[in-house]
Amino acid sequence: GFVKFDHHRHLRQGFPEVILGLGKTPEQVVEILKLVKDRNHPVLATRCNDEIIEKVSKEIPEAEIHELARCITLYRDKVKIPEGMGKVLVISAGTGDLPVAEEAVLTLQMLGNPVEKLYDVGVAGIHRLFENYEKLLDARVLIVIAGMEGALASVVGGLVDKPVIAVPTSVGYGVSFNGLAALLGMLNSCSAGIGVVNIDNGFGAAFLANSINRIGRNVKK
Amino acid sequence: GFVKFDHHRHLRQGFPEVILGLGKTPEQVVEILKLVKDRNHPVLATRCNDEIIEKVSKEIPEAEIHELARCITLYRDKVKIPEGMGKVLVISAGTGDLPVAEEAVLTLQMLGNPVEKLYDVGVAGIHRLFENYEKLLDARVLIVIAGMEGALASVVGGLVDKPVIAVPTSVGYGVSFNGLAALLGMLNSCSAGIGVVNIDNGFGAAFLANSINRIGRNVKK
Amino acid sequence: GFVKFDHHRHLRQGFPEVILGLGKTPEQVVEILKLVKDRNHPVLATRCNDEIIEKVSKEIPEAEIHELARCITLYRDKVKIPEGMGKVLVISAGTGDLPVAEEAVLTLQMLGNPVEKLYDVGVAGIHRLFENYEKLLDARVLIVIAGMEGALASVVGGLVDKPVIAVPTSVGYGVSFNGLAALLGMLNSCSAGIGVVNIDNGFGAAFLANSINRIGRNVKK
Amino acid sequence: GFVKFDHHRHLRQGFPEVILGLGKTPEQVVEILKLVKDRNHPVLATRCNDEIIEKVSKEIPEAEIHELARCITLYRDKVKIPEGMGKVLVISAGTGDLPVAEEAVLTLQMLGNPVEKLYDVGVAGIHRLFENYEKLLDARVLIVIAGMEGALASVVGGLVDKPVIAVPTSVGYGVSFNGLAALLGMLNSCSAGIGVVNIDNGFGAAFLANSINRIGRNVKK
Amino acid sequence: GFVKFDHHRHLRQGFPEVILGLGKTPEQVVEILKLVKDRNHPVLATRCNDEIIEKVSKEIPEAEIHELARCITLYRDKVKIPEGMGKVLVISAGTGDLPVAEEAVLTLQMLGNPVEKLYDVGVAGIHRLFENYEKLLDARVLIVIAGMEGALASVVGGLVDKPVIAVPTSVGYGVSFNGLAALLGMLNSCSAGIGVVNIDNGFGAAFLANSINRIGRNVKK
Amino acid sequence: GFVKFDHHRHLRQGFPEVILGLGKTPEQVVEILKLVKDRNHPVLATRCNDEIIEKVSKEIPEAEIHELARCITLYRDKVKIPEGMGKVLVISAGTGDLPVAEEAVLTLQMLGNPVEKLYDVGVAGIHRLFENYEKLLDARVLIVIAGMEGALASVVGGLVDKPVIAVPTSVGYGVSFNGLAALLGMLNSCSAGIGVVNIDNGFGAAFLANSINRIGRNVKK
Amino acid sequence: GFVKFDHHRHLRQGFPEVILGLGKTPEQVVEILKLVKDRNHPVLATRCNDEIIEKVSKEIPEAEIHELARCITLYRDKVKIPEGMGKVLVISAGTGDLPVAEEAVLTLQMLGNPVEKLYDVGVAGIHRLFENYEKLLDARVLIVIAGMEGALASVVGGLVDKPVIAVPTSVGYGVSFNGLAALLGMLNSCSAGIGVVNIDNGFGAAFLANSINRIGRNVKK
Amino acid sequence: GFVKFDHHRHLRQGFPEVILGLGKTPEQVVEILKLVKDRNHPVLATRCNDEIIEKVSKEIPEAEIHELARCITLYRDKVKIPEGMGKVLVISAGTGDLPVAEEAVLTLQMLGNPVEKLYDVGVAGIHRLFENYEKLLDARVLIVIAGMEGALASVVGGLVDKPVIAVPTSVGYGVSFNGLAALLGMLNSCSAGIGVVNIDNGFGAAFLANSINRIGRNVKK
Ligand SMILES: Nc1ncnc2c1ncn2[C@@H]1O[C@H](COP(=O)(O)O)[C@@H](O)[C@H]1O
Ligand SMILES: Nc1ncnc2c1ncn2[C@@H]1O[C@H](COP(=O)(O)O)[C@@H](O)[C@H]1O
Ligand SMILES: Nc1ncnc2c1ncn2[C@@H]1O[C@H](COP(=O)(O)O)[C@@H](O)[C@H]1O
Ligand SMILES: Nc1ncnc2c1ncn2[C@@H]1O[C@H](COP(=O)(O)O)[C@@H](O)[C@H]1O
Ligand SMILES: [Mg+2]
Ligand SMILES: [Mg+2]
Ligand SMILES: [Mg+2]
Ligand SMILES: [Mg+2]
Ligand SMILES: [Mg+2]
Ligand SMILES: [Mg+2]
Ligand SMILES: [Mg+2]
Ligand SMILES: [Mg+2]
Repeated sequence: GFVKFDHHRHLRQGFPEVILGLGKTPEQVVEILKLVKDRNHPVLATRCNDEIIEKVSKEIPEAEIHELARCITLYRDKVKIPEGMGKVLVISAGTGDLPVAEEAVLTLQMLGNPVEKLYDVGVAGIHRLFENYEKLLDARVLIVIAGMEGALASVVGGLVDKPVIAVPTSVGYGVSFNGLAALLGMLNSCSAGIGVVNIDNGFGAAFLANSINRIGRNVKK
Repeated sequence: GFVKFDHHRHLRQGFPEVILGLGKTPEQVVEILKLVKDRNHPVLATRCNDEIIEKVSKEIPEAEIHELARCITLYRDKVKIPEGMGKVLVISAGTGDLPVAEEAVLTLQMLGNPVEKLYDVGVAGIHRLFENYEKLLDARVLIVIAGMEGALASVVGGLVDKPVIAVPTSVGYGVSFNGLAALLGMLNSCSAGIGVVNIDNGFGAAFLANSINRIGRNVKK
Repeated sequence: GFVKFDHHRHLRQGFPEVILGLGKTPEQVVEILKLVKDRNHPVLATRCNDEIIEKVSKEIPEAEIHELARCITLYRDKVKIPEGMGKVLVISAGTGDLPVAEEAVLTLQMLGNPVEKLYDVGVAGIHRLFENYEKLLDARVLIVIAGMEGALASVVGGLVDKPVIAVPTSVGYGVSFNGLAALLGMLNSCSAGIGVVNIDNGFGAAFLANSINRIGRNVKK
Repeated sequence: GFVKFDHHRHLRQGFPEVILGLGKTPEQVVEILKLVKDRNHPVLATRCNDEIIEKVSKEIPEAEIHELARCITLYRDKVKIPEGMGKVLVISAGTGDLPVAEEAVLTLQMLGNPVEKLYDVGVAGIHRLFENYEKLLDARVLIVIAGMEGALASVVGGLVDKPVIAVPTSVGYGVSFNGLAALLGMLNSCSAGIGVVNIDNGFGAAFLANSINRIGRNVKK
Repeated sequence: GFVKFDHHRHLRQGFPEVILGLGKTPEQVVEILKLVKDRNHPVLATRCNDEIIEKVSKEIPEAEIHELARCITLYRDKVKIPEGMGKVLVISAGTGDLPVAEEAVLTLQMLGNPVEKLYDVGVAGIHRLFENYEKLLDARVLIVIAGMEGALASVVGGLVDKPVIAVPTSVGYGVSFNGLAALLGMLNSCSAGIGVVNIDNGFGAAFLANSINRIGRNVKK
Repeated sequence: GFVKFDHHRHLRQGFPEVILGLGKTPEQVVEILKLVKDRNHPVLATRCNDEIIEKVSKEIPEAEIHELARCITLYRDKVKIPEGMGKVLVISAGTGDLPVAEEAVLTLQMLGNPVEKLYDVGVAGIHRLFENYEKLLDARVLIVIAGMEGALASVVGGLVDKPVIAVPTSVGYGVSFNGLAALLGMLNSCSAGIGVVNIDNGFGAAFLANSINRIGRNVKK
Repeated sequence: GFVKFDHHRHLRQGFPEVILGLGKTPEQVVEILKLVKDRNHPVLATRCNDEIIEKVSKEIPEAEIHELARCITLYRDKVKIPEGMGKVLVISAGTGDLPVAEEAVLTLQMLGNPVEKLYDVGVAGIHRLFENYEKLLDARVLIVIAGMEGALASVVGGLVDKPVIAVPTSVGYGVSFNGLAALLGMLNSCSAGIGVVNIDNGFGAAFLANSINRIGRNVKK
Repeated sequence: GFVKFDHHRHLRQGFPEVILGLGKTPEQVVEILKLVKDRNHPVLATRCNDEIIEKVSKEIPEAEIHELARCITLYRDKVKIPEGMGKVLVISAGTGDLPVAEEAVLTLQMLGNPVEKLYDVGVAGIHRLFENYEKLLDARVLIVIAGMEGALASVVGGLVDKPVIAVPTSVGYGVSFNGLAALLGMLNSCSAGIGVVNIDNGFGAAFLANSINRIGRNVKK
């Protein structure tokens, strides 16, 4: 009885149930998942640590585990991509950013978005980005994920005129301050109009990208 | 010769020229404005202090001065709202947030967006927000502008399923730390998928809102 | 011999003995508990980690363990609610805030206060709060417990004219900075007159609420 | 038209209108004051700078100016102290804390509280505090105002069992960080149950003290 | 060969060798201790973790382990208190401060100072301090050790005219920021002339106290 | 009455009256100075801004103004150096540190200490320090005053075995953070036993140096 | 007599005298300049504010004023470029960075380096940088000067294999924190081996570039 | 397929492949090392934790493990020192700085630089530095590695006219803030022209030193 379910949210927002694993005990996650399962509704759990993943695997065998993304899903196959959705391009700078990128990708898919990936294109070797310029132009929304100094967001933002969402990651050491340096870099970007979310918040970026993407869909023609 | 003009930007981005007044001398702003004027292209200068405004008023009498927004425009009348654009709703919490809100409004208009305003609806008297619930639902993109603790963004984000862009302002004192508290609040919002821009950056929020709004327009039907 | 007992405190303040487990070895906690036990006086130990709980369970079997709250009590049944006390309402935003909320509840009870709970009513789904508006109005003192951006305190503060005590929690990640964002939000609240305590300090909030609640009791009629 | 008045607040909260001068132009303050004046309701404006005070003095001659407190009042004489209110004791550490202390005193009076003052009793000469021990015991609520390291709050909190509200001030230099050191000191106080408000926020402390004091009054006997 | 021994230091400074265990491997500490042992000179190792203590116990059985202080000594019995030294009083606020206090005591003793202890006298129960006023007056130098808000230093500093050295400790949680709040409090103390050392640096405080104490000794009569 | 308090600080501490100008109005400083003057007692006012200095010059013509130190004194000639005092050496790194150094010198003199100065010996040209090695050895207490990175304190601390008091100054720019970098450097000094005071607090360092110096004097032979 | 001249520095380091104007009174700067002038040696004064510039212009008419760079020079014509020096390229992002860039240029010239400039090439329009790729390859040392997020340093660092020195500037607002965001970005750069100097420290970057450039000259062939 | 190899980098930069172990799984490091191994090219992996080292030892037996430096190399013997390279001197302050120093040394060697070491010469015993003055003068580039207050960089910078690169380390406790204090000290150094890299970034310092050293080599005679 410790949870007040927001039964109307997925109606109001066209959205699967989402659970933030962080700060919950494995028992609590299992209890919530089972509640949702009974309603046959797609569900995504993010930021699940090893204990949660182990417990869920045992108690709910039909749950899909996404190791790299630290996520769990149920009824993923029920999700359909609605008509009118554009491509969302998920760009990441380095290997360490992959868990955040994959969390974003999974969220986008659960929300019904076609996703394109462009990984390992950090600005230290900027030619890797330019070799994929077509992909940049082809997307309707772009998510840029980078740690350390986060310069990738500024470079991408200067190359496209589509909405760019930037996700700083905690990749780095010393004065990266667990992602703070990247966050500040993205908020101060000299490329105008980049929307920033919390450090490592791949989920939030995907959620925003989805609400943007749906505009193309909902627009009264 | 101190400026390398980016002649392709307005083509590439469908955009009037924009000048950041901050960090420029009045002489520099006038020089740039005159350069742009010769090309008959709409232009917006933001964050203009008293010295800049005085100098420009004298040297370029046809320039429009927007005192509250600390902005200057030229050829504003040339801007037309393109077909397919939705309403952008600019929400602000208190009187001190008005300059930032007006910078956003002006930028949106220069970029060709229909704008709706909802001012002075801070959460201390939350009924003021609910009395305008229709306006919230009517917008395609929402910009929420608030200082102090910035809680307005979370409340609005929980009420709509459209993209929300949050602008923390430097309104406050003590541990508001010139907008840092509001920024942190918005980045940590428990309402999912809010895109945040730099403190007092009304321009950046409007720029992002515009790129989102155009999706409805550009979408290949 | 390492502790100078403040024998007069519970007389001076009408209070059971309270021990802060944090920074003490299990041996030290056991030693202190035994000292107090001999005086047959109610006692509460807060912030007890697994080692302390294990040690105390073994050495003092009559001690009550409150797992979720990370607390230990002795002689809880000796506490009576004095006449004239009002209801204290403990409101929390999410699942992760429960340990802090339960620490507050336990402290309030040990101090002789009737407690009402309203859990899982974070502002992302603000309707959950409004559905319980009666409870808000029915309380004499309100404790609001929230992590992330802490906006719940501002919303509650705007709805009632009773004293509101806000407890930021360390729930969150990235720029929540272990509760700092919530703390700053609460200190900057646009709702006037909210008293704030340290991050995760459910005990302190309850202690203050009790001293407020007793005013109704002590008041010379 | 830039202000949405919250006409119900003083009904809902039994409160005069309050205006935060900070971040408003002198013209805006005058406009609001005139609006309220027409309703014959008591009003308090805090954090008024020299420009505001000058403008208001000229435009609304019947306004009372409180120079040290940086406040302006209208219809102060209409405020009556309701039955059942206790004494609120306002304690301050040094000369530099006076403006904040006076803002608190004025707010308390506007809200109908009997006020006692105990100024210049910083802990460097702790005997000054002990010489006034009777005053401490005589109060129903205590507000402690101090800058620098803010130790006064801890000392007072240890001496009384009544609610203590602490206000850090920006008095100090170097690593006082404009009041941050005092704020941290107060939030970490080893004396339990001190409620803290924002730096220099005499108004907020008084507002909270009033809502506490009224409990004695409202209590159902 | 990784250490350049400062053979002249104990001559230049009248001092036993001191080793900082922090940041050294157990092997390195053992290697250094053996080097010093061969010179029959008193030695003190501070901030030794469990691995170091275990390794040293095994390899150098004659080493004295001081568990609470996290220190190791050799040839402690060789230290004599020189003529003319005064008493150094080590005052601490709570149980969590004991390791730092004991590190200071041990260092003082190794340096040849008579030490008096006054533990568990935090300002929340200030009468405990006053009951020991004689001890305060009897000391030539005072070391005050406290975490949380560190107010004890200010109170002690206001009561004596002898040199006071303050040591903030990392005891606390939330916005104690691992001792930063106490440090800031001590640096901003309204009691004049308190010398502050790094967080948890009992060694440094004792070292300074010793150099002060020796003035009484060295003074040319 | 558990303590017999000594109401007269200058008797208890052998000290002239000291006024902190910061945070006081010129009128307040004049008022206090006049009060003290009537008692014919030496007095020192520190951190006096231009307005205070101007006002005092006009109203109390016999007051001595110390422009560089931003201080004011009265009855300075009444101060005598007591027997048994040693030399206090005031060392500073650069030109910008002079106001703080002079505040320390003046305070030392008002407290009856013989003072030696060694200015402009920053570590960028370390030979300047070594050329004055004799002065270092000749002092009983040393005050080291430096901004920027504050390395001078570590170097001096490594060369002498007398008490060293370090004063960080706000000299610098960028990440000197108004003296914070120097403060951190001094608190982390690898030279053991340096006592640190607040940024720019020449007064506090001198006060501590005096209490140390007096040990040589008071010592029971 | 307040300055201890380091007469050997220019011999030891092959360098003109340099004066930091910041923190000095106009009188002090004039006095030092006159001292140097008498020795006929080239001299550079940096960070000179309006008062210093005015005073020097009046008192030393032969001094060259460099308004944009906030610098003053004497005997600049005496500086010769030694054989074997390579080109130093000074790159800057935007108009606001010009004062820092010009300070660097002037310092480089006073130290005998051939300088090339590449201004206004911020990454928001990255094509401006690529159009000047030849200049990048042609330099022996590169200085990159940028505010806001400072991403330019990472991009340049990825394109060349020559030493890159990065200078963050205080250009920006909000969470640029006066250059801190740019500094963090540069220190965390994913392009390896960038040496960073203090915010706005064009002088320091030039000084380092010179010492690097001279290696080409001094190398024993 | 998760890595986009930058095949041209070692050509473009004359450089062995370098892998940052931090943030990579042991499997990922092994996979990359094997890819590089097949190309017979020298490779260096830095910041490898115990898991990585164990996995690599098992899977790639010919890999060299450098325990203290936390690094792994392959084909180290293929590296030749090119003609014209000068000596790089690596100076460190204390035992705790050794891992960073050794990472720098290893990187320098892999890049083809003759390396000299000068360890354990912190400024608390400054004579140790002066006894090695010849070594300072003999180097073409100097890397200074220090934690705590980082004063060593300033002292070295004042003694030589060659390029100095400073590496702050996370050695220390309390307000060393894991290397931040040392970083700030180095950025604020009163010795001109020190280039600073991220905390603990021995690799980056070596990379920069190499690019400087090569100037002597590449210079067109
Ligand atoms: N208020 C503002 N805040 C942030 N960026 C701005 C603002 N106004 C203009 N800009 C950006 O600054 C660019 C112009 O910079 P500049 O060339 O220095 O005038 C524009 O293209 C915008 O991207
Ligand atoms: N607990 C401590 N905190 C700070 N400095 C210490 C401590 N213990 C020892 N030291 C200093 O560290 C020096 C020894 O450092 P090391 O040579 O690295 O063992 C001693 O001479 C002391 O100055
Ligand atoms: N420059 C200073 N910095 C810090 N504390 C000071 C300074 N000057 C005076 N004080 C302290 O402030 C006290 C006087 O404060 P007040 O009564 O407000 O004038 C003196 O007794 C000193 O302890
Ligand atoms: N210890 C280190 N610190 C900072 N950067 C490093 C370090 N080691 C390697 N790098 C950089 O990281 C790059 C490799 O990153 P990755 O492709 O993720 O392995 C190298 O080319 C270096 O530029
Ligand atoms: Mg763009
Ligand atoms: Mg929403
Ligand atoms: Mg309320
Ligand atoms: Mg109390
Ligand atoms: Mg004292
Ligand atoms: Mg010493
Ligand atoms: Mg490069
Ligand atoms: Mg040098």
